[in-house]
Amino acid sequence: MASSGAMDTDKLAKGLVEGHLRPLSRAITLIESSNPDHQDYAAKLLDQILPYTGNSVRIGISGVPGVGKSTFIEAFGQLLTAKGHKVAVLAVDPSSQITGGSILGDKTRMEELARDKNAFIRPSPAGSTLGGVAKKTRETMLLCEAAGYDVVLVETVGVGQSEITVASMVDFFMLLQLANAGDELQGIKKGVMEIADAIVINKAEGENRQKAELARGQYMNALHILRPKSKNWTVPVLLASALYNEGVAEVWDMVKDYRGKLTASGEFADKRKKQAVDWLWTMVMDNLKDMFKNSRNVQAMLPQIQEAVVNGTTTPSAASKRLLELFKRY
Amino acid sequence: MASSGAMDTDKLAKGLVEGHLRPLSRAITLIESSNPDHQDYAAKLLDQILPYTGNSVRIGISGVPGVGKSTFIEAFGQLLTAKGHKVAVLAVDPSSQITGGSILGDKTRMEELARDKNAFIRPSPAGSTLGGVAKKTRETMLLCEAAGYDVVLVETVGVGQSEITVASMVDFFMLLQLANAGDELQGIKKGVMEIADAIVINKAEGENRQKAELARGQYMNALHILRPKSKNWTVPVLLASALYNEGVAEVWDMVKDYRGKLTASGEFADKRKKQAVDWLWTMVMDNLKDMFKNSRNVQAMLPQIQEAVVNGTTTPSAASKRLLELFKRY
Repeated sequence: MASSGAMDTDKLAKGLVEGHLRPLSRAITLIESSNPDHQDYAAKLLDQILPYTGNSVRIGISGVPGVGKSTFIEAFGQLLTAKGHKVAVLAVDPSSQITGGSILGDKTRMEELARDKNAFIRPSPAGSTLGGVAKKTRETMLLCEAAGYDVVLVETVGVGQSEITVASMVDFFMLLQLANAGDELQGIKKGVMEIADAIVINKAEGENRQKAELARGQYMNALHILRPKSKNWTVPVLLASALYNEGVAEVWDMVKDYRGKLTASGEFADKRKKQAVDWLWTMVMDNLKDMFKNSRNVQAMLPQIQEAVVNGTTTPSAASKRLLELFKRY
Repeated sequence: MASSGAMDTDKLAKGLVEGHLRPLSRAITLIESSNPDHQDYAAKLLDQILPYTGNSVRIGISGVPGVGKSTFIEAFGQLLTAKGHKVAVLAVDPSSQITGGSILGDKTRMEELARDKNAFIRPSPAGSTLGGVAKKTRETMLLCEAAGYDVVLVETVGVGQSEITVASMVDFFMLLQLANAGDELQGIKKGVMEIADAIVINKAEGENRQKAELARGQYMNALHILRPKSKNWTVPVLLASALYNEGVAEVWDMVKDYRGKLTASGEFADKRKKQAVDWLWTMVMDNLKDMFKNSRNVQAMLPQIQEAVVNGTTTPSAASKRLLELFKRY
């Protein structure tokens, strides 16, 4: 990034909206940069491209390592580009702040899709916090939309709260599960079944097919006892074999079905509005927490006050009161 | 509450620790009061009684209206007092800030238990926020422990996040479900199945027995696909008929089993420590949010900034940045 002189964000925005790849890459680099000047440019750029955003289906895809996420996304992405869509593949992986993303770290994982002119693959941004990584991915999603990508896939791994964060930025969240996780049914992580708009059992091929069918029944039973999020959508459990390109088209049909039904009911637009407000408050609270933790008075006392709470020598309310008084003094 | 002169919290603490009912009631009134002087006394009192707290089993009990919570708690409480325990019954019901608690609003709901000398029933404190109600209930729980109650039951209804809040303050969280919710299995609210340490199907009596058995199988299937929270505890699904006093003793046996296993593994103590730190941070964040929302600069601009986010004319990150600048100026 040239540091000499002011940046022409107008030109960058124009090139990006015209769908050129270079301005898109440069814009993402700006967004991912921690340089304050770059951040100012990025903010200006986002304001400029905002009218061109929102025109994609945002799909979150999660699953443990080994579930075949790359193979699935490669097959799914190629199906979509063959149908004339422009597909962006992003990722949220806060565990890899050093390597710059263990998932999607290199494009060799999705060789064919990476060569596809109508697909854009970007590894997870680096960041020490999930909030920071998510912010960059959300903003990159907006850039991709402005650049004409009409399907955005956001991949994540099952680390901490990352699925919940990804679910909060997409229209549709699907969970990939394994058909062949030994004799036991593959367990679903706490909190994840509840945010899934669909479960896709991958690797439902050959000998695994029967296991996958059985698993499907069990997942459906489990989903059945949860109250549905929307009366217009029953969470389906699909079988797929990304490797043999089976069941992948059905996943896309399902997403279209979802979009159609929830657009008709108004829930699709409402969900995005709610996500935007929730994101605003998440960022406000994250920043307030940073302000609090960076307060010198708080920093000086926090370890011993927290220790007293753990040891039961003070109540959490007394401790929080004391910390807030320290914070207000600064 | 006498407002003339300083209060003798030493005396109050002494009376409370000796197990007298009047000081306990007075102390709870202090904790529930919004008078700043009372709050100071309450804080001082809590510090004094803190060494006497922690010696109870804290049990959260949730379920929709109609599931038979009162009947269950009455039967469960009487079983416990008959075994020589002292039982406190508290509640978290943020929906009833005016009436002072729609659940446990009067003791006529649990007539026999209310007459039991070894049981103490307190309706939900009033409060406009779940956080405020929860704070009072948590502190009341500490008072009850100091007063010698060795089993604390915290009742809640399925309103908003109340179950999750109650789960965060108890050792064991059980969800009561209905056996006879028509032909359909009674659905479990989003997020609740994941925090349950046990499911108890109540009203498993007469014609409902068979339905309850069937429901039990379905809940067990569903739980089976969730990864367990602890390798030392598999969430059981029990049948009970509180009305006919069947299966209630088994619920207590289960709680003791849980406490035994998780105490042995160290998880019982760890969970309490984690809850205390989480509570500290919840209170800090709630207070920071209040400070933020009460900032005059923020108040002046918040509606229109939030509106711009909803309408998509500004990004949540730009909006949060602007709001935080307004906040810092104050």
